[in-house]
Amino acid sequence: MTVLERFLQGDQSALARIISVIENRENDYRKILSRLYPLAGKAIKIGFTGPPGAGKSSLVNDIAKKLAGQGNKIGIIAVDPSSPFTGGALLGDRIRMTDMPTDGSVYIRSMATRGSTGGLAAATGNIVVARDAFGFDYILIETVGVGQVELDIIDACDTVVVVLVPESGDAVQALKAGLMEIADIFALNKADRPGSEKIVAELNMILEIKRRKSDWELPVVPTEAINDKNIDLLLNKIQTHIEHIKATGVFESHRRAQIRKKIDTILQTQVNLMIRERLRETADLEKIVSDIFEGKVDPYTASHDLLEISELKFPVDK
Amino acid sequence: MTVLERFLQGDQSALARIISVIENRENDYRKILSRLYPLAGKAIKIGFTGPPGAGKSSLVNDIAKKLAGQGNKIGIIAVDPSSPFTGGALLGDRIRMTDMPTDGSVYIRSMATRGSTGGLAAATGNIVVARDAFGFDYILIETVGVGQVELDIIDACDTVVVVLVPESGDAVQALKAGLMEIADIFALNKADRPGSEKIVAELNMILEIKRRKSDWELPVVPTEAINDKNIDLLLNKIQTHIEHIKATGVFESHRRAQIRKKIDTILQTQVNLMIRERLRETADLEKIVSDIFEGKVDPYTASHDLLEISELKFPVDK
Repeated sequence: MTVLERFLQGDQSALARIISVIENRENDYRKILSRLYPLAGKAIKIGFTGPPGAGKSSLVNDIAKKLAGQGNKIGIIAVDPSSPFTGGALLGDRIRMTDMPTDGSVYIRSMATRGSTGGLAAATGNIVVARDAFGFDYILIETVGVGQVELDIIDACDTVVVVLVPESGDAVQALKAGLMEIADIFALNKADRPGSEKIVAELNMILEIKRRKSDWELPVVPTEAINDKNIDLLLNKIQTHIEHIKATGVFESHRRAQIRKKIDTILQTQVNLMIRERLRETADLEKIVSDIFEGKVDPYTASHDLLEISELKFPVDK
Repeated sequence: MTVLERFLQGDQSALARIISVIENRENDYRKILSRLYPLAGKAIKIGFTGPPGAGKSSLVNDIAKKLAGQGNKIGIIAVDPSSPFTGGALLGDRIRMTDMPTDGSVYIRSMATRGSTGGLAAATGNIVVARDAFGFDYILIETVGVGQVELDIIDACDTVVVVLVPESGDAVQALKAGLMEIADIFALNKADRPGSEKIVAELNMILEIKRRKSDWELPVVPTEAINDKNIDLLLNKIQTHIEHIKATGVFESHRRAQIRKKIDTILQTQVNLMIRERLRETADLEKIVSDIFEGKVDPYTASHDLLEISELKFPVDK
């Protein structure tokens, strides 16, 4: 039996093998992805983002346990591309989470990349597809930071929870940083700490403007992950948001936008390969590099000329 | 007189205007860059990277002052795309640096992007070109973190200084994170703190292997930026490295590699624009998106078909 056949029969070790093939881009990974894609699409994807130390991992674990209690199969993906200097923390947090169900209903994986973030968004997306095709009901994705890679990953989720804490003026920072644009729900975690009521009030005040322009009442939920406080409320808001976007068509239109993005990425990769091959065959690239190095021509003019020389034009341009 | 003419005559306000045009990609920015590129290439670019709180800004400022003392014109670019949550620190540090020369020999600019890192590496590179063309002798570039964007920015520098501190096991973390690959010089800053000797010894031991494979004796310099200790030594190592790479041809081959990368980026951008236009004209993209959404086809097969349908092939493939 092939690994794909075992995967289709629900073999966990086949899932692990296939994820590893996809992550390392081994020989057949595209062929395998082609088979998995049509099976995917059922899982709900929930993204959690926010500053280091906000308690995202605890919150994600709490939500996973509640969802598992509802009879769901949950996949957790923790992505931390931001810094090798603090990269250890995420895994450390994970190790402390010892009270997760051990019946296979919750499956955790960390994507710590340590210096190479190229293709991380694509790799994470492909692993989500594998999980989805395997039959997970919910996939929870946790990221630190909001670089482009993290934004791409979070943007692919159906519902985005931005996790903040009372300290350090993160609320206003988050709003400035454009997190308001990506948030569907704010969780103010560690809400037992001083200043939390003030921040909830401030957030609500600022968000009032956004709520008026939208039909989704963007909620601010004060949570205490380690005390299991308001986790049910947070989960309720998440599931209400999913129902809301399904009813309004946003769910489908957002997923279609993600598909368009995926096609774009595939085409770009393909066409870039073709460019490289074509240039190798038609142009004296090193001569052009020398001319630029010596200041005889600039890269923009040279690239334009390269397109001409190599007939790197589509039929429509001829 | 046009802004470019004023720039060429050394008008600081014209430089500021042109940098703003480039940064915001205003109408004529490519035409302006085409003019500036052949004038650039003389400035030495030095990159500084390392964890937050390592004292990079102090070190960069110290080096800038020493270089200015040698009669050079210095540009400092501080890039912090990593996180909006801590993004304020960099600017805060800058404001505390009040003892910089005020004769115009040192020019500081922060690139804090707050949520949008797309194109940051390209924008930073273009601003370096403008500074270079204007006649700066040294351009010091400071980044936090080692995401792909930061790596691209640092990789474009002639000499890379990785700044570490004695605390927190950063030395080993940095080596794991692949910082050894990009470092030309290690500065162990805050070297008056406990444990610094041990870390310098550890670093030296690990680096011994790399030194054996290379003709550059990768140095570890213990510095105390705030006490002006070993800054002269660090600057000496930087200038020795520049001399070394110029003598061995690495300087030119590295810059040529950067030019190849730039051509690649320009071609990809151009060709991607063509793809989009061509698809809009020839394919029913929304039908394909629907098919993928409904699981009738996968994005890889669909993209392959799109390339066929749209004749998105270069003559060589026909």
